[in-house]
Amino acid sequence: MNKKLLLDCQARITPYIHNTPVLSSHLINEIAHSELLFKCENFQKMGAFKMRGATNAIMQLSDSQKAQGVVTHSSGNFAQALSLAAKSLGVKAYIVMPKNAPKVKVEATKAYGGIITLCESTLVAREQTSLNIVEDTGAAFIHPSNNMDVIIGNSTASQELLQEQTDLDYIVAPVGGGGLIAGTALAAHFFGKDCKVIGAEPQNVDDAFRSFKSGIIEENLTNNTIADGLRTNLGNLNFPIIQKYVSQIVTVEEHEIIESMKLIYERLKIVVEPSSAVALAAVLKEKEFFKNKKIGVILSGGNVDLADLPFNKNFQ
Amino acid sequence: MNKKLLLDCQARITPYIHNTPVLSSHLINEIAHSELLFKCENFQKMGAFKMRGATNAIMQLSDSQKAQGVVTHSSGNFAQALSLAAKSLGVKAYIVMPKNAPKVKVEATKAYGGIITLCESTLVAREQTSLNIVEDTGAAFIHPSNNMDVIIGNSTASQELLQEQTDLDYIVAPVGGGGLIAGTALAAHFFGKDCKVIGAEPQNVDDAFRSFKSGIIEENLTNNTIADGLRTNLGNLNFPIIQKYVSQIVTVEEHEIIESMKLIYERLKIVVEPSSAVALAAVLKEKEFFKNKKIGVILSGGNVDLADLPFNKNFQ
Repeated sequence: MNKKLLLDCQARITPYIHNTPVLSSHLINEIAHSELLFKCENFQKMGAFKMRGATNAIMQLSDSQKAQGVVTHSSGNFAQALSLAAKSLGVKAYIVMPKNAPKVKVEATKAYGGIITLCESTLVAREQTSLNIVEDTGAAFIHPSNNMDVIIGNSTASQELLQEQTDLDYIVAPVGGGGLIAGTALAAHFFGKDCKVIGAEPQNVDDAFRSFKSGIIEENLTNNTIADGLRTNLGNLNFPIIQKYVSQIVTVEEHEIIESMKLIYERLKIVVEPSSAVALAAVLKEKEFFKNKKIGVILSGGNVDLADLPFNKNFQ
Repeated sequence: MNKKLLLDCQARITPYIHNTPVLSSHLINEIAHSELLFKCENFQKMGAFKMRGATNAIMQLSDSQKAQGVVTHSSGNFAQALSLAAKSLGVKAYIVMPKNAPKVKVEATKAYGGIITLCESTLVAREQTSLNIVEDTGAAFIHPSNNMDVIIGNSTASQELLQEQTDLDYIVAPVGGGGLIAGTALAAHFFGKDCKVIGAEPQNVDDAFRSFKSGIIEENLTNNTIADGLRTNLGNLNFPIIQKYVSQIVTVEEHEIIESMKLIYERLKIVVEPSSAVALAAVLKEKEFFKNKKIGVILSGGNVDLADLPFNKNFQ
């Protein structure tokens, strides 16, 4: 792994993605007693950073691989990202989704040109169905987070951020499958000036927090979080990067995620999904630690059911 | 009125306001069959373009006037704008609000340092209460929309937009009291290259549409629109500017406002108030007219009750 790999990736995918804006709020800075710079991946194409990794992973295939298409299993943003990235690159995308996936996500994936196969909602069924497609079509399997080209693609969000804000003390990013935080950590390592990376994770799905402590990949015990993008588990490719380049993982409670989400809507005036709010929640929880620092906060995406905003409900 | 007046105003207020970003959405462009560039005044300080006019109006006072403070009556964004602008300029702001104003608006105005006087909710009571404050304190009365310094201050939104996007065919802005559309029209006249300005107004409060046709200021017959920022009437200072420099006013129905608002949340991923959606609704209603044109759309503000988003309700 070296600087050039990351820079080459940025040059490669730039024509296919947005260089997303960085926003800030005077009032949120006052609350946090620090300077927060929000990298708005909710404004990314298809509404999430996943577009970066998906685009890079497809572009790194050989022409003969591209001709046979790509396949993934996802019920979330990666399904849409791989479909849209494949479409812009003239490649077929086969998407395996669980039968019980929300209809709106299935429709969105279809709208981006994904060829959908529904399966049972177990991980075994998803993997087996993906494998069948690989065998039938010769398509290349692209994992949503545990894939080096995806990780390097994701690093471009923080590359852009550090090109605009060269003196960040920290970057805080949410941790789900580990693909975003690993990419963030690589970018900060190669392009930051002593910029540390901190992962933010819902306490209810704290596999990364526990793995980071124990040194082996731990499993999530529940998927009981409103941060639906962060329910997945770390993988064997991103975990070593996290161990090496991430300095700490902070866990937050559900009510902290919801409060931060509300603050983002009210003060930044932008639409984000719950997973995005986890990074701000971590900064506000560890206010003393971050005091007077300059902090990049990755807002990972904006695909949310607006009729069901969690801060409008009485959560327990 | 000349170019220099507007440029001087921009130079004067720039340190006190945000140069707000311009966003676009590939999908909204596809729906509209035109290229839309959204000027995001929802990201302005205190969340609306009103900050521009309020700042300019206070700055144009003499030092002795400033020492005695400013006063306005408003239950909406101008109350907050004048309070915050006054605070940044070290001036006292007296704000007259109706007793039945939403508590959240009263609190927000207080938080920005406004000195609040509550009164009955009639226009007569508001004006009389403001007059009493002028007499008691010597404060300068600043009308939210019918004031030349406010109008010129508001022009800076479109000055910025035209500095970034020099070849717009149209700018579409919502029409309420007339202060935004008049400022927009002046900016387009002096800085656009044959850039026409079109006003967008809710059909239920179509005083500007009717005034524009009849040539005299008509009254609103109801205030029955979800676009709460647009319920006010044109004034004698902005109407002549509108007559001279606005090319057309388009009215839209409530359901069209709500649909456009939803589109903005879902596709631009930003939080706007219903008044902001009126301009997009007008573009979508007159799709054939705007076909293949390059259109600036002023999103006027983002102060909205998130627990009460109109597209989440069954509206009639």
